[in-house]
Amino acid sequence: MAFGLARRELRPKVPLRPGEGDKNHLTSLEGLAALSLDALSSVAYGPEAIVLVLVAAGSGALSATLPITLVISALLAVLVVSYGQVIAVHPDGGGAYAVAKKDLGPWPSLLAAASLVVDYVLTVAVSLAAGAASLASAFPALSTHLLAVCLVGLALLTAVNLRGIAESARALMLPTVLFIGSMLGIIVVGLIRSHPAAVVGTPVPVHATEALSVLLLLKAFSSGCSALTGVEAIANAVPSFRTPRVKRAQRTELMLGALLGVMLIGLAILIRRDHVAPRGGVTVLAQLTAGAYGTGWAYYATNIVVTLVLLFAANTSFGGLPVLMSLLARDHRLPHLFGLRAERPVYRYGVLALALLAAVLLVAANADTHRLIPLFAIGVFIGFTISQVGLVRHWATERPPGWLRRALINGIGALLTALAGLVLLTTKFLEGAWVVVVAVPLLMLLFARIQRYYDAVGAELGLGRIPPPPQRTTSLVIVPVGEVSKLAQHALTAALALGDEVVAVAVHADPARVQVLRESWDRWNPGVRLEILDSPHRSLVEPIVEYVRHAASDGRQVAVLIPEVEPRHRRYQILQNQRGILLATVLRARTDVAVCMLPYRLRL
Amino acid sequence: MAFGLARRELRPKVPLRPGEGDKNHLTSLEGLAALSLDALSSVAYGPEAIVLVLVAAGSGALSATLPITLVISALLAVLVVSYGQVIAVHPDGGGAYAVAKKDLGPWPSLLAAASLVVDYVLTVAVSLAAGAASLASAFPALSTHLLAVCLVGLALLTAVNLRGIAESARALMLPTVLFIGSMLGIIVVGLIRSHPAAVVGTPVPVHATEALSVLLLLKAFSSGCSALTGVEAIANAVPSFRTPRVKRAQRTELMLGALLGVMLIGLAILIRRDHVAPRGGVTVLAQLTAGAYGTGWAYYATNIVVTLVLLFAANTSFGGLPVLMSLLARDHRLPHLFGLRAERPVYRYGVLALALLAAVLLVAANADTHRLIPLFAIGVFIGFTISQVGLVRHWATERPPGWLRRALINGIGALLTALAGLVLLTTKFLEGAWVVVVAVPLLMLLFARIQRYYDAVGAELGLGRIPPPPQRTTSLVIVPVGEVSKLAQHALTAALALGDEVVAVAVHADPARVQVLRESWDRWNPGVRLEILDSPHRSLVEPIVEYVRHAASDGRQVAVLIPEVEPRHRRYQILQNQRGILLATVLRARTDVAVCMLPYRLRL
Repeated sequence: MAFGLARRELRPKVPLRPGEGDKNHLTSLEGLAALSLDALSSVAYGPEAIVLVLVAAGSGALSATLPITLVISALLAVLVVSYGQVIAVHPDGGGAYAVAKKDLGPWPSLLAAASLVVDYVLTVAVSLAAGAASLASAFPALSTHLLAVCLVGLALLTAVNLRGIAESARALMLPTVLFIGSMLGIIVVGLIRSHPAAVVGTPVPVHATEALSVLLLLKAFSSGCSALTGVEAIANAVPSFRTPRVKRAQRTELMLGALLGVMLIGLAILIRRDHVAPRGGVTVLAQLTAGAYGTGWAYYATNIVVTLVLLFAANTSFGGLPVLMSLLARDHRLPHLFGLRAERPVYRYGVLALALLAAVLLVAANADTHRLIPLFAIGVFIGFTISQVGLVRHWATERPPGWLRRALINGIGALLTALAGLVLLTTKFLEGAWVVVVAVPLLMLLFARIQRYYDAVGAELGLGRIPPPPQRTTSLVIVPVGEVSKLAQHALTAALALGDEVVAVAVHADPARVQVLRESWDRWNPGVRLEILDSPHRSLVEPIVEYVRHAASDGRQVAVLIPEVEPRHRRYQILQNQRGILLATVLRARTDVAVCMLPYRLRL
Repeated sequence: MAFGLARRELRPKVPLRPGEGDKNHLTSLEGLAALSLDALSSVAYGPEAIVLVLVAAGSGALSATLPITLVISALLAVLVVSYGQVIAVHPDGGGAYAVAKKDLGPWPSLLAAASLVVDYVLTVAVSLAAGAASLASAFPALSTHLLAVCLVGLALLTAVNLRGIAESARALMLPTVLFIGSMLGIIVVGLIRSHPAAVVGTPVPVHATEALSVLLLLKAFSSGCSALTGVEAIANAVPSFRTPRVKRAQRTELMLGALLGVMLIGLAILIRRDHVAPRGGVTVLAQLTAGAYGTGWAYYATNIVVTLVLLFAANTSFGGLPVLMSLLARDHRLPHLFGLRAERPVYRYGVLALALLAAVLLVAANADTHRLIPLFAIGVFIGFTISQVGLVRHWATERPPGWLRRALINGIGALLTALAGLVLLTTKFLEGAWVVVVAVPLLMLLFARIQRYYDAVGAELGLGRIPPPPQRTTSLVIVPVGEVSKLAQHALTAALALGDEVVAVAVHADPARVQVLRESWDRWNPGVRLEILDSPHRSLVEPIVEYVRHAASDGRQVAVLIPEVEPRHRRYQILQNQRGILLATVLRARTDVAVCMLPYRLRL
C-alpha cells in the first residue's frame, strides 16, 4: 500500500544494539555492561577454539596457544584504536552498513549487510552452543542433550523478544560484573596456585596427527579470532551514550579492549602453565575454573554465570538483526514486512527470521560450537574491514588536520582485518567457511533483486512525479444478501451512504427460496433493487463475480460491500463469515473493484 | 454474512453416495456396481473377524463360524426386506438422518447424524486397514509397514476427492465384476477341490484360553456383523436410479443381499471344511484364495482386486460424509463452512475433516483391522434401527392398505438390529466400543450446541421479521496515503466516487518527510484534504485507528479505503501490502467502520 513505499534516508536513530532508550542514556560503565557482553563472552569459546586446533599436532603444540593469543590481542589493540576513530567520525552510530552506504556506495553496503546478517545469526548459534556446553560442564547429565538445551534457550529468547523487552543497562550490570570478576578471579587465583585445585572431565587420548606447521598455526589463529567478535558493538551505539557521547563511547571501547585482552592473555598463560588439553564433557574454560576454584560451589556458580552471559550475548543479536533488517526494508532491500512493528514495538518478522535461521544452524551443526566456529568471525572481519576502508575514504575526502595519520591508522586496521579475514577464509574453507562464501553473495543478490523490484514498482507508481488529478466518477455499490434481516438493513444503510446507486444481489438455486426472498423484499421495500442471480453450478461465488465483472465494465467505480456477522466470542468465529471471506478473496483475485467488509457485531 | 444463514429445508437432492449425476442415472446392475462395493467388500474382514474371536476357545471352536454366519445372513435377509420398504417410502433418498428428521424429530436425527459420522470415518479406517492387510498377503515385504500403506492410500483418496472426481458407475463395473467373480470362484473351486491347493502364511500356535461360552459366541456374532455394513447405501441413493426408480433400487438391494449372503455362507463353509485358523502375515481371505487358486498369478490378482475394492469402499465415505456434513451445515448443526463449495464442486472442508479423523483412527489403531472392528458396525446398527423405527412410525401414521404387515416387518427389523446393536455394544465395550459410546453423545451435543448458537444469531438478526428500512446518512471515506503517486490518485478516484466527504491521512514521525509530503500534496492539489497524524510511538497503525474511531463517532457512515499494490506474479506478494493488511485487520477488530481494499494491479 501507499505508505509502504516511503523512501527515507538511512538514519539509524534506532540503535543497532539493545539496551538503550532515548530517555535512558548510558555512562561509560553502563555502556560496558550493555554493549560488551557479546565481545567479553567470547572468551568462553575463543581460547578453546585455539586449543582444539593445536592439539592435532600433539600436546606439545599446545604451548603455541600463548603466542597466538598475543597476536590476536595485538589485532584487538589495532581494532580498538581504529574503532576509537570510527566513533569520532560517526557519532550517529557507525554500523558497518551505515558507514559503507555513506562512504563506499551500494555494493560494499550490500556486502556489509549480508555479512552482518550472517554474523548475527552465527552469534546466536555459537553463543547458545557454547552456553549449553558450559551448562553441561556443571551438570554432566545435560551433555547428551546439548541440542535440546540450545533449542530451549532459543525458544526462550524468541518468546521474550516477541513480547518486547524493556531491557536496561542496569539489569545487565550484575551479570557483567560477576562474569568479569569470575574470569579475573580464575586468572589471579589460578596463577597464585602452584598447580590446579581440581581436574574435571574425562581424559581424551592425545595423538599428534599432523606436524605443527604454519598452516596449523594460521588455523589456530583464525579459530581464535572468534574471540574478537562483538568489539564493533560500541561504535554502532554511540547515540545511546550520555554526553559527551564520543568521549564516553571511546572510553568504553578502551575498557572493553583492555578487559578482553587481559582475559585472553591471562587464560592463555594458565593454559600453557597447566598444560590444559581438551577433555571430554567439559569446556576448556570449565577446566580452568576447576583449576582455580576447585569443584565446589564456585565452580557451579562460575559455569552458570558463563551460561547466562552467553545467553545475553545471543540476545544482543535479537536486538541487532531485526533492527538491521528494518533498515534494509526501509532501503527497499528486504520485504517491507521486516520494517513492520505491529501493535508492539517489536520487529516481529525479523525476530522470527533470526530464530528460524539460528535453529537451522544449530540443528545442522548438532549444537557443536566447534562446527560453527569455522563459519563465524568471517562476517565480522568483513564488517571490520569495510568500516576501516570507509574511514580511510572519509579522511582522504575531508582532509581534516592530521588526516594522514588517522588514515594510516585505519588503513593499517583495514589491511590487518582484511588479511585476518582472508586467513580465516582460506584455512577454514573446507571446514565450513564455504557456507559463508555461498551465503553472503546470495544474500547480496537477494537484496539487490528486491531493491530492483521496489524501484520498478516505484517507477510504475510514478513516485517523485506529480500524477494527474483524481477523476470524478459515479459509484455503484453491490451488496450480496441472503435474506431480509437486520444484517441486510445494516449493509444497505452503509451502501446507500457510499454509493450513487445501490443494488442488492442474491444467489439461489432453489426456486421456492427465491420466491420467499422476493416476497419479503417487496414487503420490506428498502428502496434498493434486488437482483436474483442464477447459479447453474450451485456455486454461490461465481454468479456474483460474473455480475460484478459485468457491472465494472461501464467506467463507474464499483464496490462490493460484504456484511460480516462478528461474534463477540472468538470461539464462534469458525461458525461465521466463511462465505463472505471466500467471496472477498475471489473478488480481490479476479476483479479490480473495491471490496468492503462491514462488521455487524453480535451481542453473543 | 447474510446468505450464510439461508434456512433451507432438508432436501437431499445431492445423493448421499457417489457415482451418480443427474444426467447419468443408473440401471439395476450399474447401481450394484456403484453402491454395493462398501457392503460386498466387507467379506474381506467380516468372516476373519469371527474366526479371530472363536480361536480364543481353540481350533475346535472354529466350526462355530458357519452357524454364526447363518445367523448373520438371516439378519441380512431381514435388513434387505426392511430396506425394500424404506426405498418405497423414501424415493427421495432415505438416509437415516433424513428419515429420522422427518419421522422421529430432532434428537433421533442428531443420534442418526452422529452415528453416521462415526460410521463413515470407521468405514475409511477399516477398509484401508483391511486393504493394506490384503496387499501385504500378496507382498509380505509390506507387512511391517501397514500403517504407512494405509496413510498413503488415505492421502491418495484425499487428493483425488479434493480435486473432485467424475466417478461413473461404469468405471466401477469392472472391479465389481472381477471381485464378485473371484469370490464366487474361490467358493466353487474351493468346494470342488478335496483339500486346499496351497497353504500360505506362517503358522501361529493355537491355545484355547477360554471356553466356548455364550459370551464368546455373541462376541463372534458381533464381530461378524461388520460384514453387514453398507447394505443401507442403496436406500440412500434411490434418486440416482433410472425410472422406475423404486423398482430398480429394490431389485439392486435384493441382488446385493443375495450376493453378500452367498459369499458369507460359502466362505464360512470353506473355513469349516479346511479348518482355516488365523496364520501370520496373511488374511483369512488370502488363505481361502490360496486354497482355491494356489499361489500362482490368480492369488496375486485376487489379492490386488480385493485391495482395490476396499480402496473404492473407503472412497464411498468420501462421497458420503462431506455431503452429510453439508446437510448438517444447512440445518445449522455444523459450521456453515462445511456447506461451502469453493470453486470446485467439492465440499473441501468435509473431505479434509474425514481424512484427518480417519488418519487419527488409523494411527491410534496402528492400522490393525481387529482393533477397529469393535468400534465398527455399532454406528451402522444405530442407523439401521432408526430407519426401521421411523418407518414403523410412518406406517402407524399413514395407515395405507397392508400397513400392519409392513409395520410388522419393519418392527421386527428394528427389534433385531437394536438387539444386535446392543450385543455389539455390550460384548465389545471394553475392547473399543466405549469410544463410540463417548463419541456419539459428544457429537450430538456439539450439533445441538451449534444449532442453538445459529438460532440465537438468527433471532438477533431478526430473521423472518421485516426490519426497519435502511437509514439515509452521509459518508466519509478515509484514505491512508504514503506519498503522492499514481496509487494515491487511484485511491482518491475511488474514494471521491464513494464518499460525500473524503480525507487523506498520512502518518509520519519524521518532520522532514512531513514537509516533503505536504509540499508535493499542495503542488498536486487533488481537491482532498490531507491530514498528517502524529505517531508518538512510531506505530503506523495506531494513529489511523484513533483517527477513524474519532471520525466514526458523529453518526456518519465511515469507510477506510486502503489501496493495495497487487503484483502480477505471486512470488512478489510477500513484498507488498503487508501494512495494508495489518491496518485492515486492526480496523476490523477494533472499529465498526467499513474497510475497503482497492487493488492497484502492477504490470510486473
